[in-house]
Amino acid sequence: MGSDAASRSDLPDGHVVPRFAGISTFARLPHTRDLTDVDVAVIGLPFDGGTSYRPGARFGPQSIRAVSTLLRGFNPVQSVEPFSELRVVDWGDAATSPVSIEDAFGAIEDAVGTVLAANVFPLLLGGDHSVSLPVLRTLAAKYGPVGLVHFDAHPDTWDVHFGRKYTHATPFRRAIEEGVLDGRRYVQIGIRGSLPKRSDLDDARALGVTILSADDVYRMGIEATLGRICEVATGSVYVSVDVDVCDPAFAPGTGTPEVGGFTSREMLAMVRGLAPLELVGFDVVEVSPPYDHGEITAILAANLAYELLSSLVGRLAPQGRGDGGRPAV
Amino acid sequence: MGSDAASRSDLPDGHVVPRFAGISTFARLPHTRDLTDVDVAVIGLPFDGGTSYRPGARFGPQSIRAVSTLLRGFNPVQSVEPFSELRVVDWGDAATSPVSIEDAFGAIEDAVGTVLAANVFPLLLGGDHSVSLPVLRTLAAKYGPVGLVHFDAHPDTWDVHFGRKYTHATPFRRAIEEGVLDGRRYVQIGIRGSLPKRSDLDDARALGVTILSADDVYRMGIEATLGRICEVATGSVYVSVDVDVCDPAFAPGTGTPEVGGFTSREMLAMVRGLAPLELVGFDVVEVSPPYDHGEITAILAANLAYELLSSLVGRLAPQGRGDGGRPAV
Amino acid sequence: MGSDAASRSDLPDGHVVPRFAGISTFARLPHTRDLTDVDVAVIGLPFDGGTSYRPGARFGPQSIRAVSTLLRGFNPVQSVEPFSELRVVDWGDAATSPVSIEDAFGAIEDAVGTVLAANVFPLLLGGDHSVSLPVLRTLAAKYGPVGLVHFDAHPDTWDVHFGRKYTHATPFRRAIEEGVLDGRRYVQIGIRGSLPKRSDLDDARALGVTILSADDVYRMGIEATLGRICEVATGSVYVSVDVDVCDPAFAPGTGTPEVGGFTSREMLAMVRGLAPLELVGFDVVEVSPPYDHGEITAILAANLAYELLSSLVGRLAPQGRGDGGRPAV
Amino acid sequence: MGSDAASRSDLPDGHVVPRFAGISTFARLPHTRDLTDVDVAVIGLPFDGGTSYRPGARFGPQSIRAVSTLLRGFNPVQSVEPFSELRVVDWGDAATSPVSIEDAFGAIEDAVGTVLAANVFPLLLGGDHSVSLPVLRTLAAKYGPVGLVHFDAHPDTWDVHFGRKYTHATPFRRAIEEGVLDGRRYVQIGIRGSLPKRSDLDDARALGVTILSADDVYRMGIEATLGRICEVATGSVYVSVDVDVCDPAFAPGTGTPEVGGFTSREMLAMVRGLAPLELVGFDVVEVSPPYDHGEITAILAANLAYELLSSLVGRLAPQGRGDGGRPAV
Amino acid sequence: MGSDAASRSDLPDGHVVPRFAGISTFARLPHTRDLTDVDVAVIGLPFDGGTSYRPGARFGPQSIRAVSTLLRGFNPVQSVEPFSELRVVDWGDAATSPVSIEDAFGAIEDAVGTVLAANVFPLLLGGDHSVSLPVLRTLAAKYGPVGLVHFDAHPDTWDVHFGRKYTHATPFRRAIEEGVLDGRRYVQIGIRGSLPKRSDLDDARALGVTILSADDVYRMGIEATLGRICEVATGSVYVSVDVDVCDPAFAPGTGTPEVGGFTSREMLAMVRGLAPLELVGFDVVEVSPPYDHGEITAILAANLAYELLSSLVGRLAPQGRGDGGRPAV
Amino acid sequence: MGSDAASRSDLPDGHVVPRFAGISTFARLPHTRDLTDVDVAVIGLPFDGGTSYRPGARFGPQSIRAVSTLLRGFNPVQSVEPFSELRVVDWGDAATSPVSIEDAFGAIEDAVGTVLAANVFPLLLGGDHSVSLPVLRTLAAKYGPVGLVHFDAHPDTWDVHFGRKYTHATPFRRAIEEGVLDGRRYVQIGIRGSLPKRSDLDDARALGVTILSADDVYRMGIEATLGRICEVATGSVYVSVDVDVCDPAFAPGTGTPEVGGFTSREMLAMVRGLAPLELVGFDVVEVSPPYDHGEITAILAANLAYELLSSLVGRLAPQGRGDGGRPAV
Repeated sequence: MGSDAASRSDLPDGHVVPRFAGISTFARLPHTRDLTDVDVAVIGLPFDGGTSYRPGARFGPQSIRAVSTLLRGFNPVQSVEPFSELRVVDWGDAATSPVSIEDAFGAIEDAVGTVLAANVFPLLLGGDHSVSLPVLRTLAAKYGPVGLVHFDAHPDTWDVHFGRKYTHATPFRRAIEEGVLDGRRYVQIGIRGSLPKRSDLDDARALGVTILSADDVYRMGIEATLGRICEVATGSVYVSVDVDVCDPAFAPGTGTPEVGGFTSREMLAMVRGLAPLELVGFDVVEVSPPYDHGEITAILAANLAYELLSSLVGRLAPQGRGDGGRPAV
Repeated sequence: MGSDAASRSDLPDGHVVPRFAGISTFARLPHTRDLTDVDVAVIGLPFDGGTSYRPGARFGPQSIRAVSTLLRGFNPVQSVEPFSELRVVDWGDAATSPVSIEDAFGAIEDAVGTVLAANVFPLLLGGDHSVSLPVLRTLAAKYGPVGLVHFDAHPDTWDVHFGRKYTHATPFRRAIEEGVLDGRRYVQIGIRGSLPKRSDLDDARALGVTILSADDVYRMGIEATLGRICEVATGSVYVSVDVDVCDPAFAPGTGTPEVGGFTSREMLAMVRGLAPLELVGFDVVEVSPPYDHGEITAILAANLAYELLSSLVGRLAPQGRGDGGRPAV
Repeated sequence: MGSDAASRSDLPDGHVVPRFAGISTFARLPHTRDLTDVDVAVIGLPFDGGTSYRPGARFGPQSIRAVSTLLRGFNPVQSVEPFSELRVVDWGDAATSPVSIEDAFGAIEDAVGTVLAANVFPLLLGGDHSVSLPVLRTLAAKYGPVGLVHFDAHPDTWDVHFGRKYTHATPFRRAIEEGVLDGRRYVQIGIRGSLPKRSDLDDARALGVTILSADDVYRMGIEATLGRICEVATGSVYVSVDVDVCDPAFAPGTGTPEVGGFTSREMLAMVRGLAPLELVGFDVVEVSPPYDHGEITAILAANLAYELLSSLVGRLAPQGRGDGGRPAV
Repeated sequence: MGSDAASRSDLPDGHVVPRFAGISTFARLPHTRDLTDVDVAVIGLPFDGGTSYRPGARFGPQSIRAVSTLLRGFNPVQSVEPFSELRVVDWGDAATSPVSIEDAFGAIEDAVGTVLAANVFPLLLGGDHSVSLPVLRTLAAKYGPVGLVHFDAHPDTWDVHFGRKYTHATPFRRAIEEGVLDGRRYVQIGIRGSLPKRSDLDDARALGVTILSADDVYRMGIEATLGRICEVATGSVYVSVDVDVCDPAFAPGTGTPEVGGFTSREMLAMVRGLAPLELVGFDVVEVSPPYDHGEITAILAANLAYELLSSLVGRLAPQGRGDGGRPAV
Repeated sequence: MGSDAASRSDLPDGHVVPRFAGISTFARLPHTRDLTDVDVAVIGLPFDGGTSYRPGARFGPQSIRAVSTLLRGFNPVQSVEPFSELRVVDWGDAATSPVSIEDAFGAIEDAVGTVLAANVFPLLLGGDHSVSLPVLRTLAAKYGPVGLVHFDAHPDTWDVHFGRKYTHATPFRRAIEEGVLDGRRYVQIGIRGSLPKRSDLDDARALGVTILSADDVYRMGIEATLGRICEVATGSVYVSVDVDVCDPAFAPGTGTPEVGGFTSREMLAMVRGLAPLELVGFDVVEVSPPYDHGEITAILAANLAYELLSSLVGRLAPQGRGDGGRPAV
Repeated sequence: MGSDAASRSDLPDGHVVPRFAGISTFARLPHTRDLTDVDVAVIGLPFDGGTSYRPGARFGPQSIRAVSTLLRGFNPVQSVEPFSELRVVDWGDAATSPVSIEDAFGAIEDAVGTVLAANVFPLLLGGDHSVSLPVLRTLAAKYGPVGLVHFDAHPDTWDVHFGRKYTHATPFRRAIEEGVLDGRRYVQIGIRGSLPKRSDLDDARALGVTILSADDVYRMGIEATLGRICEVATGSVYVSVDVDVCDPAFAPGTGTPEVGGFTSREMLAMVRGLAPLELVGFDVVEVSPPYDHGEITAILAANLAYELLSSLVGRLAPQGRGDGGRPAV
């Protein structure tokens, strides 16, 4: 099951090679750009040129990789071994220019496009939230307009930010306008805090977006929230997690912290609950290491990625295994 | 609505002038000592000379201002635009001597007195908790003895601390003794942790104070807690929030952290629930920036102030607007 | 009540000698190796040579002592005055070699053995989790195989770690094998996160261990959890708290943070609920100060120790007081 | 001497209003955009979108202002009182877009242009080093091509960075190409560390630039270095200080630290020695607060600005004072 | 040589008890208030209520003690074993009130007075610089007006600070006025940076003080500086070291950092060079742990104290040893 | 020149792939264990189990690698392009057990032995200083007893530490005893600070070691120091740099900081001056990231390694190039 290159048997045993040793790849997975017989590729998108407040997310992939060596092989809550049951590699980073958002988007489209062309599921580590737009473009080129499950404190569906259309506050409006994201299959979860204008959420809703604010989630509970998510996010679905959806207590290392957010436990439960969806890609973004004391935000991000990976086992692993062929990602 | 000086239309647009740019005033409000046609004045009280453990709260106003530029115009939970519906200014700081608590109190009384004389609501940023005493004195000079809603891990109603009557552990006993605070209209919320003496809470209760410990709140729930608060805090009421009422996870940057505290979400809900009260002033105190990694405590304090401001809209804004006159603060 | 040496009346009054002043002993207790008429001895076990990821726990006792000066005399939730009702001293640290786990274990056995020989209850400050093994050995020499209430994110019952039998991941398997811990009276609470192998928890269960994962606790609630703990942990019982049982938001300063953990409030409630057990020793371990910004993890650890101390009052204090004799620890 | 608005007599007395109190302007100077009777305007250029490694310089002006309240009125080494002898104001920040280097450059040209139009000397606080290019453009529009004294670890005269012509590594090549900087009147001081290509320094020299590497300075001594600087930087001269010219020990909070740099004492002496030059503008750039523990880099930057200000007294103050007119800046 | 209590033979061997273990006393010396047969007592003065900018020095003694465990027995540069050749103890801290400078001064006078009464040399750990005044008072009561060698970036001879006579900026003017310090035997070394008024240094000189600015020292060299110090500081001499005399690179953890200061090597050499003086007391002050990343300032302070202690060997040890009597301190 | 695998042409261009992007290998070199046609292999030795005070050096290789992406291709002082003129790879880390010094030494001997067997020069990143012993053993197996140039604040030639022969304080005495290090060709540079016993340096000298204390170096100057080094360190020579040889201002992130040390500039000059020696291996050790704020210690270590690499060009590159063969390392 899985190529030699990507199989867990190649991976260092944490009881032999200590977890602080070695070149830091995501979860100590093989670093390769050979996508033969690979199910999932982890790709860093180290770009923070769309950030409006605290920068630093360009170091997000480096920091998440460094702490992700703590991830172990078996997920007891989902009862799967994602690195054995899936063939996962660390592809490295897109060559994102720090000085041009257009060039960075191009690099991201190149990287994700390469992976999608090989029928590999892209698991992306940001970077600021602007990186989701080029990812969505690439996904839509393969799947048509996708649905979106978007965890965030901020709607990120503003129109123009600093007179520019491409920033970390605007990717999802752009994506809808460009036809790569279907607003009616798009749900935002965790929105809270002050907004620039009274009309902001209505503007988002006018795009067809379903908004479940943090307060909505507290009121409904996580089960009902997941039910609502599954109603909206039909068809091919992308998942985007801005770590600021969690409270600054749980995710201090981020660019635009917003008090009153989720706990890590709530977020793990929500990511875990996405398993029924027809997932085509995932990102976790806005980890800003210079503000991440004790590295707890990076550790959270690594675990959210791990939880998502685990929930892919049922989708990617079994169906394509019978005939030795590739799963239809 | 509101004077030119204080109107939100003067304020920088966060989509044009980035939130990290410019002189840091609270929420980027105009910095002025002209109180004409002003509803609320934000005043810093940078004093920590009454602190018994970790100092640093003298830098609280500076830090809260720096991060408060993240506050935006619309509060979706309360559905108000506090900076448009109210006329709010940043008055600057009281000239608090760091080496004499008496002189610092004098400076605070001068500053708050000036603002009250102009019928402006004072929103105060500490500083350690000793600053609440001169504020209460000034309020009582205008309103008579006030009620108090006091969020804190510690009762701060001790009698003598280090042989002195004026410290951050004694302001509210002093206030009752001086007749500026009415013990029967005084409720403490969030008290927890070890106490110097078995009799401490009884001593507080003997002053007429209603104590809702952290455990009481967990047992009763927030709705019932707010109900009890509203029963006690009748008439003109001051609100004082020591950020250590929240757990150190949510408010690490404070002088006397106490484990087992509220989450940021719980505190936001409680501050929001004070809207029915006849509020005459507000402080948030004990933010100590040298211990505030990732600035999450300052961000919490800024948001608590914002939430309180929002809840003032119904009280200060409409009633005085019909005739163009000043609201009766 | 209590010897002169250990009585609270000797202790500095926090209203006279400020809490940041003086030589830092645990809770400002007397530092002495004279165990005459002592009920509880606080002992530091500054060893982190068994750590697999982030080191630093060797500075745990120093940091816990430094912040423990915030602990005050009266515990209002349990309504006891542990330092008056018990005779507690700070014994100092075991002379744990940093370069040899065998030598360190020897030093710990010497230190704890000395205290147990004097019929004094040992309250231990780690250090990494490997320190619990020599403690258990010493306890078993006195009481026979003990039961164990073990709060942790990780089971720490692995067999071999880096080809070695003695590490911070293996103490409790060793203890069972050595016959000093009774697997059927051993309950783990808070286990979560990824595991090296699918069989890890089954391996632990095969030792007789009862595992209450973090998810189990959330599902059952704290009351039911405590009920289950009391069913399992009969007879002489040791309590071991790895601070990583709490979420990294509450305990960032630790060696192997695991997201999705308990809050400080939940942990306080669980420690408090252990009062009915026949306690014979307690440790709180894995506080790593270099990662503990704002010292919030050390403050948590100090309070968990205080809560446990308070719950000893009923057991240690009254029964031995009538005749001036020593309680049967 | 000086307008009411800008005169030192308006400034808070540090013996009355503590230096941690009040709205943070540079050196507690008046914040105004009224340039009447002003000699020097301090302007923040909070942009880091040209940064190739560690970002954060967007918070440079905020941090420099916060600590600059430590600056006092009399410079004993130069024996001048810069805030009394000159009329200095804090103009605030340029409205630099974080997401577009072109827009940010436009905002900087607007801000500096406004100040130059009023014959006011611009003292600029970065921001990353890309901000010097729009400043040079604006200066050249007034003075023609200027000379440049450029302190830096890196030559910043590369041609293309990430395929883009405008970054923090290219401003001075651009400036020469655009004819706003005269390569023969341009001297770089402090260059050191590894370079991308063997030809880099020759490429810089081909532009006419005089390079005094860190090693050159150590060999020549500071007196001879200043002599050489004065030979090269004739006519109207701009001074640009990248704080990374100092060793990371003295300036840890910067984007591209380079070991083997100057001490703070050496840098103060060099800035002080520029007094004989015909100065037309000054910047200190690349202070990155997220990496600036203890704020020592910001304090250094504030003092370098102060030292430069002091050395302007002889040039700006006396000559325009006789007739009450404005000095020809 | 030396009493049992204070002899080095009692001290833990760093090759047996690791330096991170045990209760933190200065250099692991015995903690006792028994001054029989003691030569030197280390006393903490944890007060920062006189601080004008960054507080935190109240934690100075705690932090210096914690890192002072790195100090070892033999000083190879001076070729002495201070802890064997002298009888040194850690007396603990004065009970300095944080809320009253008068009460704190009283506590310091009590503590130092007790030690002087026993003919023991006081080695003091601050605390902010205001603590030197009560020490000088106590010394003068024994020795008459003393001379002073004062290392500092700031003269600390201002008259009134915030309208108060007792602050960390005024102790030495007060001391001269009170007749406890002889201005003509008082030398300041290391003064630099901006001053409030042009007349400040002249005001200091008018008191008879000899000022050797940082620039003077660089010009003269350390040998000549020491020569000048010895000329001025005749008779009984106190030494006071404000760690801000070193550059912020070497001493970031301090209240009022001033760039352009000494290196640690220069300061060690200067303290070492004071051996010929008739020393009667020593303090090192203004270590502020909240700003002291990597604890390097506390380590510097501990070593400066050690160097001074070493230089006392020649004075305190031999002369009193012949007859077993006490040296005339 | 050089194999495809190791040639600089394979390396990412820092003007295209930003330096914060990608998997962090040393200087972005290829990560491979294929040693064909390789001149130098960088190997991490992530072990800190021999540390006596602050741990954390196990994360040294990870941190040095992360910041080493700042290293560029051309060294202007030495005028070489080390990555083009030499074939350098990042071999990864030895699988050092954190819980057994014996096992860790075995892993180091395996790793270095493999590299030496391929005639590749080992450039080693620690780890604490105990790692040098297994390296010396491996070198001696190839070259016979080697000479040693050892930069350090501490002699590390103690006999027994905590009753154990293998710690970070004893490697060089062990090496001499084992016959792998020739004491007469061994020179220590930078020794300073207090020592456990008066006899420590004599004990070291009795082994034949030449000691140049920090004071000696200051007195002699760097040129003379290098002259003396070259006299002593004849034949095959290993170089070992403990970063604590630099002052804590320049290297705060280390386990046993010692004030009064070298500047980064002095250390660069000394490493550069070793080019004439017959070098057979190099390590830089004791970088402890948890204490390394702003990462300045890791940046220093990376640059010292780069400087040493550059000085190898003359030795390794030319002589083996004529016939396309391997140089005799």
